[in-house]
Amino acid sequence: MPPIDANPAARSAPARRITRRREPRYAVVAEQLQGLIGSGQLRPGERAPSVRELSRQSRISAATAVAALRVLERRGVLEARPQSGFYVRPRPRRSAPLALTQPPRTASDVSVNSLLGLLDAARNDRRIVPLGSAIPESAWLPERALQRRVVAAARRLPSLLSEYELLRGLPALRHQIARRYAEIGCALAEDELLVTNGCMEALHLCIGAVASAGDTIAVESPAYFGFLQIIESLGLKALEIATDPRDGLSVEALQRALDGRQGHSIKACLLVSSYSNPLGASLPEPRRKALLEVCSEHDIALIEDDIYGELNYAGARPPPIKSLDRSGQVMLVSSFSKTLAPGARIGWVAPGKWLQAVRLRKFTTSASTAPLLQHALADWLAQDGYTRHLRRLRQDCAEHVELFSAAVERHFPPGTRISRPEGGFVLWVELPPGRDSLAMHARALREHISFLPGPLFSATGQYRNCLRLNCARSWTPRVAGAVRRLGQLAG
Amino acid sequence: MPPIDANPAARSAPARRITRRREPRYAVVAEQLQGLIGSGQLRPGERAPSVRELSRQSRISAATAVAALRVLERRGVLEARPQSGFYVRPRPRRSAPLALTQPPRTASDVSVNSLLGLLDAARNDRRIVPLGSAIPESAWLPERALQRRVVAAARRLPSLLSEYELLRGLPALRHQIARRYAEIGCALAEDELLVTNGCMEALHLCIGAVASAGDTIAVESPAYFGFLQIIESLGLKALEIATDPRDGLSVEALQRALDGRQGHSIKACLLVSSYSNPLGASLPEPRRKALLEVCSEHDIALIEDDIYGELNYAGARPPPIKSLDRSGQVMLVSSFSKTLAPGARIGWVAPGKWLQAVRLRKFTTSASTAPLLQHALADWLAQDGYTRHLRRLRQDCAEHVELFSAAVERHFPPGTRISRPEGGFVLWVELPPGRDSLAMHARALREHISFLPGPLFSATGQYRNCLRLNCARSWTPRVAGAVRRLGQLAG
Repeated sequence: MPPIDANPAARSAPARRITRRREPRYAVVAEQLQGLIGSGQLRPGERAPSVRELSRQSRISAATAVAALRVLERRGVLEARPQSGFYVRPRPRRSAPLALTQPPRTASDVSVNSLLGLLDAARNDRRIVPLGSAIPESAWLPERALQRRVVAAARRLPSLLSEYELLRGLPALRHQIARRYAEIGCALAEDELLVTNGCMEALHLCIGAVASAGDTIAVESPAYFGFLQIIESLGLKALEIATDPRDGLSVEALQRALDGRQGHSIKACLLVSSYSNPLGASLPEPRRKALLEVCSEHDIALIEDDIYGELNYAGARPPPIKSLDRSGQVMLVSSFSKTLAPGARIGWVAPGKWLQAVRLRKFTTSASTAPLLQHALADWLAQDGYTRHLRRLRQDCAEHVELFSAAVERHFPPGTRISRPEGGFVLWVELPPGRDSLAMHARALREHISFLPGPLFSATGQYRNCLRLNCARSWTPRVAGAVRRLGQLAG
Repeated sequence: MPPIDANPAARSAPARRITRRREPRYAVVAEQLQGLIGSGQLRPGERAPSVRELSRQSRISAATAVAALRVLERRGVLEARPQSGFYVRPRPRRSAPLALTQPPRTASDVSVNSLLGLLDAARNDRRIVPLGSAIPESAWLPERALQRRVVAAARRLPSLLSEYELLRGLPALRHQIARRYAEIGCALAEDELLVTNGCMEALHLCIGAVASAGDTIAVESPAYFGFLQIIESLGLKALEIATDPRDGLSVEALQRALDGRQGHSIKACLLVSSYSNPLGASLPEPRRKALLEVCSEHDIALIEDDIYGELNYAGARPPPIKSLDRSGQVMLVSSFSKTLAPGARIGWVAPGKWLQAVRLRKFTTSASTAPLLQHALADWLAQDGYTRHLRRLRQDCAEHVELFSAAVERHFPPGTRISRPEGGFVLWVELPPGRDSLAMHARALREHISFLPGPLFSATGQYRNCLRLNCARSWTPRVAGAVRRLGQLAG
């Protein structure tokens, strides 16, 4: 478990900028205390150290001690008993883990596009508690610092508006992207990279480059609805592959499909390799190797979406499968939308041996990507505030997925199961059989709460009793109330 | 003929901003003098008024009179004879007009993508005289004013970087676009419009929405290479339709193709209706009506690219065919790339009855368009400097197409023919039969001059003896020298 920040709920953007510099003392103490509870040295029902004890032991003021205890109270770790002090709360029941998914074994046409309205319904409506779209709360992003870079770039280079950028994208930005991959042992030449209008364009280019109408794309199940919508719009079929909620796509199931009757029509395997959306699954290294091997053997593209890869909660981030790739079989795509600036719409692709095909498609899809925001991002990345920013963002994500998980386990009906992501910021909730997340979605939206219903994540209408929550929202009373209310609606 | 500015060649960006305010006196006098020559009151070989006569007649200083005469000398209208004064030069031979094009009558697969390298070769290389890509010189664009809007928008709304924009694009920008169409009698609801990543994405969305692999798209011939590349990348066929260099695509030829054996496979007719690229052709109103009728009868999409429509040299701009459309048969696409900010990559589409299909494709192609530059453009457009800017840009285009035309007629080999555009800023040059514009392109590039060879504009490798020049470059000695050199290379 990573160290936990003091007070995510109350944190406003300016306050955040200050606390970012150094961990405040009360947060450090709260962390130590939570460590004692996590390790069992302090058990549920036991009394926590008093304000006086804490301030003496930790050499802090009484006010700081109170702040530390309040943090843990707000997190649901301690409860205050009048006239008596703080006590360790019982850990909420831990629901059973999700099981391996079992999608149908035949490829099918996709028609999730009809559900697209669900996405736009809640967007930009300030009355709504937005637990739908998977983007981090803007206060968690370095908005002001990026803003300064945009202003500086616009001032320095007015010609950015008047000239077309190179098809491949700004060299300085490609350099920064390649540099970051190099740091985790994934060697990519800048010339292997193309800058795109977000990850969506990168995915669209990759899928379009390797498959034609009627072909099949193998996807994890449940899968990010954007995958399915691209597949639908290109007239392709999707084959959902059984997926382990922790370890990701089953390579054996993919192998079986490739060896099967219609295996020849499968042109690519498409997945989020680390902290997948919506399951939060991550392929362990042996599975990554096996997957690459199977794709190479059958000469199908392995389209690896790495968009959540940097949001690991603990340890080192897993290097993308691309780092194991010697023959260009992997098409790696990602973007800054989950970590820096969703509104910049800047993504990238390293298309391996399909580089030329993807390059041509980039020209016919959007000619080139507007250079201004590329400059701003490249400038910001060159300053290397990214590592520090990521450290905090990971912590925020870890903490909030934990807070959301605990609330779901507390307020949702018995029999509910949830995913256990180790990175990213979405939570997959499986309600007891028979519940209908589409009906629930309509009711929730009337009450100004959005989330995404499960069928959006399947080509075949599976997961009707499931839903996805975006946990990258500060845990305010309003958000807590919304999750509680969702639990009632699910009941 | 529109009024002509005094001194386009010597104009630098800051000077330009000043002269924009009021026409300098010498320019007005030069204009009047050129009017006398144009109307035949002063004939080739006759002596122009002397400095003394001119300063007396026009009540200007001798210095201003000299400036006026020098302008016309630089334009090639007058020549100075030592000790004798200025004389009207013989009008250079006026070459024969281009003939109706005669492309093959069968649809074919496209493979212009292999020529794509030609485009990127010259881009962002400052040593090159860039007569290839069709974008206006940056000094002709309101770069500084837009820059200020970008800075203001970034400052006012840092959240633009942190939030996704609505799928359809910024309402304020759609409002401005709809308002401008309304002014020319083309009623479009804001909800019928989608903002796109440039015109290229708009075209890609339209073509993809109406045709599937194997289908055919009818295009003008020669056609903008971007049309052909999209057709190629989507696995479609192109059918080139005979095109009149002045009046555009032949509706009779299209009708014949639709009635022919493979007419059923044609899913759309795709053209630039006003000041086409590369021919500069513009459909007269009866032809627009006939075209819409034919497309409606056969229920094929009429994809109308209006990207040069506002760059008419004289009179009023022709309203797009969309303004005649009552049943949603026309998919109108355009962008700000030719008139305001190529680097913003902001275009739009009004997809008529294919609105829903295009909307879904927009999501799967790039999710949404970055909002920052949308805000900046909407703010700028709301201030209404656009009308004044356009007036000057049109004048610059008219004047420079004239300058380039005269230079080509003077320096290119006998038998060369050129287009006679009445809007836009590209010139189509047909060399005598047997000349090879691809070989010429390779030689020119070695000498740091770029242009686009003819075969790029055909699905079937036609137009090998043709080339396209971008005339939206200030007529400096360097540019003039490049055109002269091209004439030698063609010789």
